[in-house]
Amino acid sequence: MTSASPTAAVLLIGDEILSGRTKDKNLGFIADYMTALGIDLREARLVPDVEEEIVAALNALRHRYSYVFTTGGIGPTHDDITADAVARAFGVEIDHDPRAVEILLAYFKEMGREPNEARMRMARIPRGASLIDNPVSRAPGFQMGNVFVMAGVPKIMNAMMEDVAKRLTRGVPMQSRNVEFRGGEGDAAQPLGQIQRLYPSVVIGSYPFQAPDGFATNLVLRSRDAAALEEAYQAVCRMAQALTAEGKARGWA
Amino acid sequence: MTSASPTAAVLLIGDEILSGRTKDKNLGFIADYMTALGIDLREARLVPDVEEEIVAALNALRHRYSYVFTTGGIGPTHDDITADAVARAFGVEIDHDPRAVEILLAYFKEMGREPNEARMRMARIPRGASLIDNPVSRAPGFQMGNVFVMAGVPKIMNAMMEDVAKRLTRGVPMQSRNVEFRGGEGDAAQPLGQIQRLYPSVVIGSYPFQAPDGFATNLVLRSRDAAALEEAYQAVCRMAQALTAEGKARGWA
Repeated sequence: MTSASPTAAVLLIGDEILSGRTKDKNLGFIADYMTALGIDLREARLVPDVEEEIVAALNALRHRYSYVFTTGGIGPTHDDITADAVARAFGVEIDHDPRAVEILLAYFKEMGREPNEARMRMARIPRGASLIDNPVSRAPGFQMGNVFVMAGVPKIMNAMMEDVAKRLTRGVPMQSRNVEFRGGEGDAAQPLGQIQRLYPSVVIGSYPFQAPDGFATNLVLRSRDAAALEEAYQAVCRMAQALTAEGKARGWA
Repeated sequence: MTSASPTAAVLLIGDEILSGRTKDKNLGFIADYMTALGIDLREARLVPDVEEEIVAALNALRHRYSYVFTTGGIGPTHDDITADAVARAFGVEIDHDPRAVEILLAYFKEMGREPNEARMRMARIPRGASLIDNPVSRAPGFQMGNVFVMAGVPKIMNAMMEDVAKRLTRGVPMQSRNVEFRGGEGDAAQPLGQIQRLYPSVVIGSYPFQAPDGFATNLVLRSRDAAALEEAYQAVCRMAQALTAEGKARGWA
């Protein structure tokens, strides 16, 4: 990974994930998205619906990474406190935002919904933030500095990402190669470590799995340096062939 | 949540989750497990295979919560550095542990696998740790203080949890009630907030979903106080009936 690549962190917000009631799907989506954009996702955190926890995590992450993506806590109910937490983390006021009010009033009118106080809470946006388009249920997310605040419902979050992506500086995308090795991780570990030391710009991971004919391992190489990636890939291919030929590849991990 | 309940944090370790290549399933499993044991899962973090990051996260979490559960990074390859990171976080030595060596040698002999240097790395355990049983592929996890170090492969991690669970102090399990409300989050938000204020020992969440006949919302009440839970549940039922009767429940969030 080159230091010139933008970096990112994810902050998942919500008691329902910590209790196990909801199984998070947003982290994997954002991880794939960042990889496609050439942005290094470096860290993720999950915190409860507690303002001090959200503020502390935001302040730990936003100074450290190029971008922070939050999901959850921007609905109309009492436990939706993300916008307030972001305002507090940045030390700015929060109030009903005229742009968000307009979007919501038009939408509620169209849908025949009552624009009650709770629903209009979704128009509360920290001062200085720009809105993030929500083509699914209109209530906008927002961008405050390098923090992107999105819904927790995966369908809405995924749609918001389309608007968010336009605002991000892309890096050189990671390229990857995969070698399926018919043997255990433990068979490949020592020579693989040698190859890793030879090619520090290539990140090599090994992921065992059970194939129909026995244990096998995916050896995954990732790099932004195409030439180094190709060299390391050839080295791993030679290693895998040699180990298989020697009949050393027998077990797993 | 009473302050007497044990608390917990999860630390997921691995580049493959940050890159999106692997979609984590361990967090949800541990969350369900903790809920069943009456332990409050309060936070989770995901960090890359970088020793300083693992050490920093471990030290941030282990002083703050009753238990920390880590997954990933205890295999035989160069990127498996969790054991070293735990030793460094606790300031203890790490070396091949005779108990772990014995387990691994017996297993490799039985399976006809070569006990090479890489495989035997899996016997490196921080001094003072106790082993965690691995009935799937034998290579043990370990407990160091209040930190439980487990495999990243879900099948192995889930099996290790059986041994880990015996060592945990259980809390009073959270009980929960669910009210399916035929209306939008925004319809229920205001009265629901009032009920929440009346019953601070009950955690009330609202989770919208699309039902066959329109938008609906699951109103979930959780508490360790059975009497308060029942009272709050009755209040939410009355609220839902009243809103439905008024015909106010028309829209979504």
